[in-house]
Amino acid sequence: MFGFSFSGLIQRGGRTGVHRDGWGIAFYEGRGCRTFHDPQASCESEIASLVQSHCVKSLNVICHIRKATSGRVCLENTHPFTRELWGRSWAFAHNGRLKGIKSRPLDFYRPIGTTDSEHAFCWMLDRIRKRHPRPPRSARALRVLIRELADSVGALGTFNMLLCDSQHLYCYCSTDLTWLTRRAPFGKASLIDTELTVDFSKETTPNDIVTVIATHPLTRDEPWQVMQPGSLLPFRAGLPVRG
Amino acid sequence: MFGFSFSGLIQRGGRTGVHRDGWGIAFYEGRGCRTFHDPQASCESEIASLVQSHCVKSLNVICHIRKATSGRVCLENTHPFTRELWGRSWAFAHNGRLKGIKSRPLDFYRPIGTTDSEHAFCWMLDRIRKRHPRPPRSARALRVLIRELADSVGALGTFNMLLCDSQHLYCYCSTDLTWLTRRAPFGKASLIDTELTVDFSKETTPNDIVTVIATHPLTRDEPWQVMQPGSLLPFRAGLPVRG
Repeated sequence: MFGFSFSGLIQRGGRTGVHRDGWGIAFYEGRGCRTFHDPQASCESEIASLVQSHCVKSLNVICHIRKATSGRVCLENTHPFTRELWGRSWAFAHNGRLKGIKSRPLDFYRPIGTTDSEHAFCWMLDRIRKRHPRPPRSARALRVLIRELADSVGALGTFNMLLCDSQHLYCYCSTDLTWLTRRAPFGKASLIDTELTVDFSKETTPNDIVTVIATHPLTRDEPWQVMQPGSLLPFRAGLPVRG
Repeated sequence: MFGFSFSGLIQRGGRTGVHRDGWGIAFYEGRGCRTFHDPQASCESEIASLVQSHCVKSLNVICHIRKATSGRVCLENTHPFTRELWGRSWAFAHNGRLKGIKSRPLDFYRPIGTTDSEHAFCWMLDRIRKRHPRPPRSARALRVLIRELADSVGALGTFNMLLCDSQHLYCYCSTDLTWLTRRAPFGKASLIDTELTVDFSKETTPNDIVTVIATHPLTRDEPWQVMQPGSLLPFRAGLPVRG
């Protein structure tokens, strides 16, 4: 099911979309996080072909195609960015532009590249770490903090972002973010960006639950939900966490 | 030239050697660091085939094949480990076993997996960070500190390790580490672990300088230098840094 969405998304990296300045992906496997990055357009990437053929078992995946608006096209400016906090691997990807984020001071985490996005990620992790030197017992407290931080960053421009702490995937919508949960009974779906239709009932087991989040819908015939600007939605094990 | 050494090394991950509990590699490309990890034996790894066919341009590469002595076989326990310090990507790989390293307290960096190696890496980076909250102006001061820290960790067992801060590759020999510099005039070399001979004079330009560091020599017909137990040797741009 991952390969299906991926097939559509990588077309937008240079063929059906303008985000041709590199792409990257992070797969969580247990506590580990495996990443692939390529400063080339995803529609022409050899590494993308490998990832597509690779049999992926992961509870959380973040994939990003880049249009360079801040920082040149190179490996260190390619999303997703990763850092360790509390002995967990965190991954982050962002679409949009942020004015003035680089004047926000950083302490623990510093950017390796020169994008506004990586600076925003380092700033958020810094704040999380200062407020919670140890992991908070309450998942809700962390959600509330992440929403506050995302609101603060979002005030500087456009901040559609995905942030994963290994267990939860936090999605913040600044202007554009849509999502869709697939579960039994499964049906058919057709990609918008390439000629591909899949009948998920033949590819899944009744217990499978998968949520896909994307800037714009990837399929033409499924009920994508549009996130409200200024909202944060966390997901865990493929389902939204409310409250 | 990278592909040649890699061809030999991956045989030791399950075919000509016992290090079959996963393998990983880190390539520095500018300030960026690209990693591939696989908890499978390197001699059978699909990702290893990709890496081998991939055209690699990198000034520093760290590759590791694992024999699990501390921590189960899984992605998060697979070397090389990476962390960011001073806005630079650091990578680390280790052969050997360390007794009691996990009782050393950690502050900034915490292991994601459960190996003694990752704990040692986090401990070293913690110490470097505490002594130098900002990058030291003197490369020598950093070398001296890394040697002290490696001596301290090495006192707990076997600590053959490679540590890279993007520019320098620090090699610490506890029991086994050998190295070899190839430069003009280039000659032929034959791998020990698989039937492969290369004539480097046909694969190189006169300005190329490459150093290979390995636990045991990878070729049968080149003058490998054996490092002294308890010594640290830093390399930069393919050449040893003395003093």
